Amino acid sequence: MSDANARMIADHLKTSETMGREWAIDIEEVREGYARIAVTVNDQMLNGYGTAHGGALFTLADQAFAYACNSYGLQTVAQSASISFLTPARPGDRIVAEAEAVMKSGRSGAFNVAVRTVDGIDIASFQGLSRTVGGAIMDAET
Amino acid sequence: MSDANARMIADHLKTSETMGREWAIDIEEVREGYARIAVTVNDQMLNGYGTAHGGALFTLADQAFAYACNSYGLQTVAQSASISFLTPARPGDRIVAEAEAVMKSGRSGAFNVAVRTVDGIDIASFQGLSRTVGGAIMDAET
Amino acid sequence: MSDANARMIADHLKTSETMGREWAIDIEEVREGYARIAVTVNDQMLNGYGTAHGGALFTLADQAFAYACNSYGLQTVAQSASISFLTPARPGDRIVAEAEAVMKSGRSGAFNVAVRTVDGIDIASFQGLSRTVGGAIMDAET
Amino acid sequence: MSDANARMIADHLKTSETMGREWAIDIEEVREGYARIAVTVNDQMLNGYGTAHGGALFTLADQAFAYACNSYGLQTVAQSASISFLTPARPGDRIVAEAEAVMKSGRSGAFNVAVRTVDGIDIASFQGLSRTVGGAIMDAET
Repeated sequence: MSDANARMIADHLKTSETMGREWAIDIEEVREGYARIAVTVNDQMLNGYGTAHGGALFTLADQAFAYACNSYGLQTVAQSASISFLTPARPGDRIVAEAEAVMKSGRSGAFNVAVRTVDGIDIASFQGLSRTVGGAIMDAET
Repeated sequence: MSDANARMIADHLKTSETMGREWAIDIEEVREGYARIAVTVNDQMLNGYGTAHGGALFTLADQAFAYACNSYGLQTVAQSASISFLTPARPGDRIVAEAEAVMKSGRSGAFNVAVRTVDGIDIASFQGLSRTVGGAIMDAET
Repeated sequence: MSDANARMIADHLKTSETMGREWAIDIEEVREGYARIAVTVNDQMLNGYGTAHGGALFTLADQAFAYACNSYGLQTVAQSASISFLTPARPGDRIVAEAEAVMKSGRSGAFNVAVRTVDGIDIASFQGLSRTVGGAIMDAET
Repeated sequence: MSDANARMIADHLKTSETMGREWAIDIEEVREGYARIAVTVNDQMLNGYGTAHGGALFTLADQAFAYACNSYGLQTVAQSASISFLTPARPGDRIVAEAEAVMKSGRSGAFNVAVRTVDGIDIASFQGLSRTVGGAIMDAET
């Protein structure tokens, strides 16, 4: 798969996704084994303490993970994930999730995702384990 | 804290939360160290493969975790969490997240959350580590 | 599989294991989906700060997890695990690791393991994801 | 702290550690926020299936993590960790654990550890959350 195809796949998946659609997530860069996306924390993403909900931060990281682990062209899903919350993010903060493949073994892959503000403040650290479960994502690629 | 207060706190937090508000999450039961909530997977919670987004399942589990770890009356937040995805959930599935305290040590607490369909199909298993970071959640209780 | 067989399998696995053999781990109870083992923290299990090494606590939890997830009679391995450290354990502390199945879906299983002192002090909370990868563990059972 | 001090701290901690001492772990490189160590899987590190015990792999990763998160000169411990097992390691395999800081926020730090054979086969992926809990590790440095 080329990096151009990796981007096409992410765009294709994004068309089908409905979770977080109203957050206007931007896909900044996708290539094989890598994805970087960004979103601005808005008033629909808050927990009971007025900061970004752990579920919103997880969703963003998981989304970058999905684009990165599907970038190889085969249908791949998250099997497990862990996340550590380092600094609360607040409404108006622009946050970036950057996913990178760290390991691959057969149908399994391990990815790290760093979630930071655009100013470089560390928000959350995410690690995901992926599993390839199907064939080509886009027919035209087979 | 009484179990009645635990429920009051959950209701109070829910009023402030905006994440997942449009999903109509039901708080079924809250008591000290325990919370059970439910939601029906809808068309706004899907990933690129048409099943419940990992971020939606995490959000639901995290929400049950938040009600359970705040049930003792002190402001408590998630520090880290891990989740394993066992079976995909589909639109229309009614899913229940049940959080229980398994350990407490000083300001730290460990909670498990089981996410299942109402028919008992295991969807996801979540473990969260909480940290008490502030004083009483509701003034009337101090 | 009966609970008696679950115990036989654990004893059988223990015979082959070499990791931690010199710690004299006791298998206290094993039944389907459950295992409880105990060990006394000794001078060979310490980190650079003189408390029980995270690797020793993980090993104990992982061992209880192994006995619990293999208790159904089929060859099963750990796929991923997470652990939270709540209270340091010290040389001489008697600690118990209690593993329980919380979820099963096809060849995957999710297990929680609580690590406590015999006095009930919470030491660590562990969650493991298992995968069944082979056939019967003991020939006599096929 | 200089990189030379980071190495001194690791050597100092190693002197006090007893866990895994008989495995002859080599400290290959330590600098601020980074540590790489290596060990050969031996007959004392096996699980019931004859491959490297998850507890042995976790211990190695946790050790690299400890050297990396203490490299800044302040007493720092593991708070939580997660590990994914990708390929079984076998007796005689030379394996390397390489830890890197990915995030820091106040007293918290997130580290990734890659565990690979010297031939580059991915064995396990580990993520740890650290917490600084005390002052200078070595008096001479204050």
